[in-house]
Amino acid sequence: MMMQAGHRRPLFVLYGASMVEYAFRPEGWGAALTNMYSRQADVLLRGYKGWNTRRALEALETIFPKNSPIPPSLVVIFFGTNDAAFPLPSGRGQYVPILEYKDNLRHICSYMMGLSDTTRVILIAPPPIFEEARRTVARVRFGEKAAEYLDRTNERTRAYAEACISVAQEMGAGVVNLWSAIQKKSNWQTECLSDGMHLSAEGGKILLEELLTVIKSENWVPSLIAEHMRSDFTEPSPYDMIHPYLEAAQSCNETALL
Amino acid sequence: MMMQAGHRRPLFVLYGASMVEYAFRPEGWGAALTNMYSRQADVLLRGYKGWNTRRALEALETIFPKNSPIPPSLVVIFFGTNDAAFPLPSGRGQYVPILEYKDNLRHICSYMMGLSDTTRVILIAPPPIFEEARRTVARVRFGEKAAEYLDRTNERTRAYAEACISVAQEMGAGVVNLWSAIQKKSNWQTECLSDGMHLSAEGGKILLEELLTVIKSENWVPSLIAEHMRSDFTEPSPYDMIHPYLEAAQSCNETALL
Repeated sequence: MMMQAGHRRPLFVLYGASMVEYAFRPEGWGAALTNMYSRQADVLLRGYKGWNTRRALEALETIFPKNSPIPPSLVVIFFGTNDAAFPLPSGRGQYVPILEYKDNLRHICSYMMGLSDTTRVILIAPPPIFEEARRTVARVRFGEKAAEYLDRTNERTRAYAEACISVAQEMGAGVVNLWSAIQKKSNWQTECLSDGMHLSAEGGKILLEELLTVIKSENWVPSLIAEHMRSDFTEPSPYDMIHPYLEAAQSCNETALL
Repeated sequence: MMMQAGHRRPLFVLYGASMVEYAFRPEGWGAALTNMYSRQADVLLRGYKGWNTRRALEALETIFPKNSPIPPSLVVIFFGTNDAAFPLPSGRGQYVPILEYKDNLRHICSYMMGLSDTTRVILIAPPPIFEEARRTVARVRFGEKAAEYLDRTNERTRAYAEACISVAQEMGAGVVNLWSAIQKKSNWQTECLSDGMHLSAEGGKILLEELLTVIKSENWVPSLIAEHMRSDFTEPSPYDMIHPYLEAAQSCNETALL
């Protein structure tokens, strides 16, 4: 709706797990992106906490039907932290083997790129893990003994981050190496992550900055750069704000000219 | 797009002036609404700072074309602060006479209600004005003498707020009396407004609370209440998160049962 004729806006879709689902919490990166493109693009949230790339792949056609009248101009894909969880003996849980993770990402990427000739894709590699905080979370949620078990490690996540980057390069998608970007920040463990895994407001800021860097990079897509995009209704209007003081000052000047 | 078949989501549209355009700034009420309905509804931003109801009316069919494949389920309409500005001798500027303001709101309301049989409308009455802060803003922006000129007063704005409420009642739309709601708060002048006019984070919180109160009121529309709405993909999955400690504890129990 509302995207016809002269005032159809490009559509940006954020597809991912909890770090997308939570992207509109206070100071969230999704909200900030929406604000930045407030008169230029629509941002839709397709975030599903807990999801790995298996679920993301299974739900793909349901969430993103083919031949939609308004295909997205940009899809941001952000999965990996859950895929990188440790495998469990039962075979249940979030873990996805790294080769399958890559394959799933490839399929998702290629599907999104097929939605229209102009749909662009950016992959976000998972952020680093602060293991000590993961143990604390386990202790608080499940009791003292649970702290002996790690659900994921920073090294495992690095491997998934690298896998994500290599898929993006192979597929010609943009990519944000969030695993590295966050670790450049001092005290990233507590400044950029809220529970050793999810992004704090500061972590979200880094993600947004990196995302904009990709969008603005020279070999990417100029039509998605806010500064180059048409803003809705920017023409001057007789109803534009004018302060009573300015009006009075102007009529004095006009009188002086008589 | 992405709103077909089983996973089509209701669409909420926020249509208004700056207090809508800014609704996705940090701690903004639009972002909070999006977060609240994160797996249930899509929220689109149609905010145009400085607009009065004349511009809102003129742009109506461009922004909200008829026979759209996805008409909104809810439209939040938030104009009035600019209409209530003082008239200027030149006839330029934001001011709209109160009777015309009512008439414009009636037209906008009725147009939105005609977008589909199920489109519901909520009008937001303008928030109060803290005049001292308006003078300060004028001084800072235009110099000492400008502080002698007020661009709008709280009493004028009250009249427009009442006009808005009466139109909503007449048209069967929901309504938020933001002018009153904010003034119930102690130190509303500085707590709830950022510059004597726009909403602070606290002011946005009050707006959101009042909006949810309307949505949840008994004679309104149950299908728009988050607690009653279907959330996307809530069925259990073999890939749901399970902590390694729980897995280990469970396999111990199973062993004990053998």
